[in-house]
Amino acid sequence: MASKSFYAVIAGAGTGTGRAAAVRFAKSYPVVLLARTPASFDETVVQINSSGGSAIGIVADITDPSSLQSAFESIEEKLPGSKLAAAIYNVNTKFGPKPFLEVTLEELDANLDSAPRGLFAFAQKTLPLLLDSVPDSPRPPTLIITGATASARGSARFAHFAAGKFALRAIAQSLAREFHPRGVHVAHAIIDGGIDTPWGKAYVANGGVEDGKIKPEQIAEDYWHLHSQHRSGFTHEIDTRPFVEKF
Amino acid sequence: MASKSFYAVIAGAGTGTGRAAAVRFAKSYPVVLLARTPASFDETVVQINSSGGSAIGIVADITDPSSLQSAFESIEEKLPGSKLAAAIYNVNTKFGPKPFLEVTLEELDANLDSAPRGLFAFAQKTLPLLLDSVPDSPRPPTLIITGATASARGSARFAHFAAGKFALRAIAQSLAREFHPRGVHVAHAIIDGGIDTPWGKAYVANGGVEDGKIKPEQIAEDYWHLHSQHRSGFTHEIDTRPFVEKF
Amino acid sequence: MASKSFYAVIAGAGTGTGRAAAVRFAKSYPVVLLARTPASFDETVVQINSSGGSAIGIVADITDPSSLQSAFESIEEKLPGSKLAAAIYNVNTKFGPKPFLEVTLEELDANLDSAPRGLFAFAQKTLPLLLDSVPDSPRPPTLIITGATASARGSARFAHFAAGKFALRAIAQSLAREFHPRGVHVAHAIIDGGIDTPWGKAYVANGGVEDGKIKPEQIAEDYWHLHSQHRSGFTHEIDTRPFVEKF
Amino acid sequence: MASKSFYAVIAGAGTGTGRAAAVRFAKSYPVVLLARTPASFDETVVQINSSGGSAIGIVADITDPSSLQSAFESIEEKLPGSKLAAAIYNVNTKFGPKPFLEVTLEELDANLDSAPRGLFAFAQKTLPLLLDSVPDSPRPPTLIITGATASARGSARFAHFAAGKFALRAIAQSLAREFHPRGVHVAHAIIDGGIDTPWGKAYVANGGVEDGKIKPEQIAEDYWHLHSQHRSGFTHEIDTRPFVEKF
Repeated sequence: MASKSFYAVIAGAGTGTGRAAAVRFAKSYPVVLLARTPASFDETVVQINSSGGSAIGIVADITDPSSLQSAFESIEEKLPGSKLAAAIYNVNTKFGPKPFLEVTLEELDANLDSAPRGLFAFAQKTLPLLLDSVPDSPRPPTLIITGATASARGSARFAHFAAGKFALRAIAQSLAREFHPRGVHVAHAIIDGGIDTPWGKAYVANGGVEDGKIKPEQIAEDYWHLHSQHRSGFTHEIDTRPFVEKF
Repeated sequence: MASKSFYAVIAGAGTGTGRAAAVRFAKSYPVVLLARTPASFDETVVQINSSGGSAIGIVADITDPSSLQSAFESIEEKLPGSKLAAAIYNVNTKFGPKPFLEVTLEELDANLDSAPRGLFAFAQKTLPLLLDSVPDSPRPPTLIITGATASARGSARFAHFAAGKFALRAIAQSLAREFHPRGVHVAHAIIDGGIDTPWGKAYVANGGVEDGKIKPEQIAEDYWHLHSQHRSGFTHEIDTRPFVEKF
Repeated sequence: MASKSFYAVIAGAGTGTGRAAAVRFAKSYPVVLLARTPASFDETVVQINSSGGSAIGIVADITDPSSLQSAFESIEEKLPGSKLAAAIYNVNTKFGPKPFLEVTLEELDANLDSAPRGLFAFAQKTLPLLLDSVPDSPRPPTLIITGATASARGSARFAHFAAGKFALRAIAQSLAREFHPRGVHVAHAIIDGGIDTPWGKAYVANGGVEDGKIKPEQIAEDYWHLHSQHRSGFTHEIDTRPFVEKF
Repeated sequence: MASKSFYAVIAGAGTGTGRAAAVRFAKSYPVVLLARTPASFDETVVQINSSGGSAIGIVADITDPSSLQSAFESIEEKLPGSKLAAAIYNVNTKFGPKPFLEVTLEELDANLDSAPRGLFAFAQKTLPLLLDSVPDSPRPPTLIITGATASARGSARFAHFAAGKFALRAIAQSLAREFHPRGVHVAHAIIDGGIDTPWGKAYVANGGVEDGKIKPEQIAEDYWHLHSQHRSGFTHEIDTRPFVEKF
């Protein structure tokens, strides 16, 4: 049975990864799903609550500090006295490859908003809560950040996207080095490859070979494994890709 | 209950990591422990067999192809018809920092023997068996290789040690890229920090802080997690270190 | 004698590296120095002009597209018909280590402004000019970007700074991959260590050992070497550090 | 005019890179070319000597310590009192991609011989000489090591080759960290792409585009630039590739 006194929060719960992580963490904790529109989390919240778990959806714009502040006040009301065991940052921007000279400053900014600026706000909000949970959390309190291939490698026509994702990784690494010694586990996941979601069906990865796209449930298991690690052996970065993905 | 038709083999079963991996994988498979002397695995074999698992110890020198060949013939005799689900390469050399100009060619060779040459022989022996298990193994057949900080970073007075460990990682990466598309999972683990073993007590890591050395059981859980990954989401490298380790 | 028909532009000309690069490139080209205040470039401009070179200083805020636009119109007026052979992005932010939970969003933004946002604007302005120079430039047209240790490694209490510098490197890598095939050389320099400038005397690097801080003239030679590379052998990243620097 | 009191030695002088480095360094030093057969260096030695430089060819098997010892005794006889300013390790093995399960142990060993074992012997021989030159060498004494893409990235069917090249890089990094503080510059060059040599004409790189293969003269200029760096700004690794090379 899930502990009532600790919860997990997932920012960016509308994507395949965020949704699957919510379902996985709900096996052990009440989960809070943050997204910009209820449509992003409604179905998942119902699914978790109707199958024995506990889930709450809260509308929030992670890149807006005051919206984020309201969200955490709302959590405090709905889960009074509950402490934070795990926080997952899984916010994405719509993006696509584009010749550099055609990218607008607005497009760059959208990537900087959803990546370094959003993570910055989310981490400043959650790290004090995670630090507070160190003494009694059932597992080391954990902040997990979803990255991409572009977190570690710039590519032609992806400067705007890579700028955001590299910055995300910079923050993740810096936080790991600052907060591991204080007992909070910070981990960054390089997800390399398409993700197998209903709405991603149109994108045919790896020639359409079976399992050529990552099952979000596998990423969720990876995240849970990270959260379950003993503090004597923290992993601060993983990469996950389909068996047929070139890398 | 453990499947009888698939087994796991651990080369270098005498160390903390090898021993813990054997115990962990024995929850699901009969395990074969390879080491140069029976003293390295005897206690672990007894422990596993007396607690409901199934373990076999075989004396073998991994860096000698004919010794390795005999070992696998012996496995075939003792576990007739059983197929290989997981192979772990965990062979180490005694080493220590030494000014480069004082290192002997014999010391370099000892590192090349236990690292690239040993892994080369072990991988050539196990990969055909793992490929053969792809269609029916309960989890994707897996080859896991234990590396170290020195796999990814050369340090002053560690040229001989880093030469072997870098080469190990080179092989691991190459095999991942060659065998993932064929369904065999190849993963390399950078273990960064001292390991908490009875015989390692003398080595005081991280100022003696509690959990300042990695618990081998945590590494074993990481290895099991790698083995359990769905082929749509293989991780080919992890790094694990104590929360207080500088990196 | 310097070619009159090609020039070089240095953004962030007030620092040791920018100043030294201006002096070095002035041996072959008229140079344009961009900085936020005349005080940053006045002395260097006089020095170059009085020793046989040709230098122009223009006040510009690189992170403001309209200010950048004016600067290039001003260049067009002052060097009519001259084409761009080399552009150097050397803009920095004041920063220092700070516990993550004390960093303000404004401090993060200052780093994002001077790093990804500033480079984005500068690259969008200069790349079309560099492309235009490909057919007849005496050396492959080059965009050089000054990074730091924090471009490739996040550190405790440096999340805000690393976020900007990682993003800079992301853009640099992406541009190298997009523009090398079109004949423009893009290179990123990881400057690892203190720089030996008059105003940096207070900062005692490496225990005050002689040459324990990088001479900016060495970085300038490195930049010139990058610019001089034949297109059959472009280097897209260098790292430079004092011989006594730990890395 | 070249200084008579300092010389440079190039191991593996028969290839395009070794030959070009000899010609470049001969502008400033007498050069010694080491190769397994005179045919590898004869033409280059004649060319240098007939154009105002000074070159000596010595037959040596770098991977055999006694052969290497004889070579350096021979240098001492032919250039009495001359000190070593620069040593270049440019030894290669014939290799090609091969399915891992078909590679023989002999093929792996050939790669380990020419890479870590050869460099180990060469570095142990040259580093004491380079250290001895620190006080009075016209430029910081330098050891340069030629690597390849496979130094930093394992690829399918290249395990044997990558094992050697990764190990080379491990030694290079370790030596840089050990010998930089003592005043000897150690640098590793990742040469990524085909090299434009007469005997390499058959290999059509990058679709046969002009300059699609690296001109060895460019690599030689890069090596000279490394050797010319002031010790306040050593670069320990460069990568060089054709402008059209994918990376």
